Amino acid sequence: MLNRLLPDEIRVLSWAPAPSPEFSARFDCVRRKYRYFFPRGSLDLGLMGKAAALLVGGHDFRNFCKMDVGNGVVDYKRSIFQASVTVMQQNDPQLESPYDMCEVTIEGKAFLWHQIRCIVSVLFLVGEGKEEPQIVTQLLNPEQPKPQYPLAVDLPLVLFECEYEHLLDWQHEQEELSRVVLKMQATWTANAVKAAMIGKMLANVEPKLEAPVLAQADSLVMGVKPKVYQPLLKRQTCSTLETKIDHYVKRRKLKKNEDNDQSGDVEMK
Amino acid sequence: MLNRLLPDEIRVLSWAPAPSPEFSARFDCVRRKYRYFFPRGSLDLGLMGKAAALLVGGHDFRNFCKMDVGNGVVDYKRSIFQASVTVMQQNDPQLESPYDMCEVTIEGKAFLWHQIRCIVSVLFLVGEGKEEPQIVTQLLNPEQPKPQYPLAVDLPLVLFECEYEHLLDWQHEQEELSRVVLKMQATWTANAVKAAMIGKMLANVEPKLEAPVLAQADSLVMGVKPKVYQPLLKRQTCSTLETKIDHYVKRRKLKKNEDNDQSGDVEMK
Repeated sequence: MLNRLLPDEIRVLSWAPAPSPEFSARFDCVRRKYRYFFPRGSLDLGLMGKAAALLVGGHDFRNFCKMDVGNGVVDYKRSIFQASVTVMQQNDPQLESPYDMCEVTIEGKAFLWHQIRCIVSVLFLVGEGKEEPQIVTQLLNPEQPKPQYPLAVDLPLVLFECEYEHLLDWQHEQEELSRVVLKMQATWTANAVKAAMIGKMLANVEPKLEAPVLAQADSLVMGVKPKVYQPLLKRQTCSTLETKIDHYVKRRKLKKNEDNDQSGDVEMK
Repeated sequence: MLNRLLPDEIRVLSWAPAPSPEFSARFDCVRRKYRYFFPRGSLDLGLMGKAAALLVGGHDFRNFCKMDVGNGVVDYKRSIFQASVTVMQQNDPQLESPYDMCEVTIEGKAFLWHQIRCIVSVLFLVGEGKEEPQIVTQLLNPEQPKPQYPLAVDLPLVLFECEYEHLLDWQHEQEELSRVVLKMQATWTANAVKAAMIGKMLANVEPKLEAPVLAQADSLVMGVKPKVYQPLLKRQTCSTLETKIDHYVKRRKLKKNEDNDQSGDVEMK
């Protein structure tokens, strides 16, 4: 079985015969669902949900990704089918807690490099009340140069589901599936027990604080949090897509398609 | 500040002046509270609670510890003030789940080597329905030789509180306390996010199993689970306390106190 040859963190749950010899698990995917897990902390989920809703539809996402011009990506139009912010597990059914586990769920056909981590980073700023939900619409304008902002960390991001045009004929092997679940439960237990231990300690220590600390979600954004917040639209901007394309054209790594310039298509040499 | 010199996993939250030069944080402690965290899995918490209640009081705990005769410990009488098994965090307020986080809480003045991990291991056997709660009373009988059984793993065990006869004058430094809480929240988040990710995956995979797997708590007992269960009282036994004492007396590492033999006191040479 393949699982014996794979590293521990990669497990095969089931397999399906490829519907055709040309089938590509990556390029024939018609719907991808990503989840990003985070604790509530001091975040306003309502504001984050409003901002997430503004992502839905076909937009130019150049300001919500790391532009990968060097690899020939110059078309940044993508479609997001669904985007939501929900509580996944509430600590106390009666009461909101900064320790409630939440998730951002985003569905689309295809995504850009670091697109989800950029989106989540901006959603966090909205949740902290530092930006209005409308910042999403402003950043979706391709005329707006991309402000510099840090990515959300990679740990909580999962590509959770992929759908294909043809229904695949998934095969489960019960014995192997049991073994994988057993192992996953043990890994879950190790992490959940540690979280419970630290959570219980925090519940004892936090009442001793004169000023509450609500930094549960802060560690999910890379870099150091600045003391004074600088609004996104007032920050230094990254070089524009056009500058980047020119850079690669000059270095003769990209060839501009003169016949069809409007489409923004370029070819890698 | 001391915290800058300590390894990351050890943090000072507050300090108190020693009430006397002879004060010992270890030997002057009059009440210790241990917590052991575990997921419900397939365990019957009611049975475990009944078994835990039988531990309360003054007993000879030689069958619930690793006998440390080599270090001169020959008196295995200890008192447990309180022992309970409770749900710490319920996944769904309406429904019991194998993913509910639970805890064993045990309070006493002083404990033997590996005493809590031995107790928890036996409580797990009771919770699995493999032993009756009364096994606790049977094992508390010093005439009963100690059956061989594995320890519960150390990860979920926390010495949570220590009380001293004289109230100590605890000093908190707010700025440092904030820093520690901030760091602890980040550690909590890393573990809670991982648990949430794996938990969500399991919720998707488990319905595909024909026979459910409830191994959430199994990874907390050391060693491999035998296919056929061997009842504790039918297992091979460890060498008795008397044999161990004789062994050390012969090796002249222990001196039997002939004047006061009944007390079981011995001295290390």
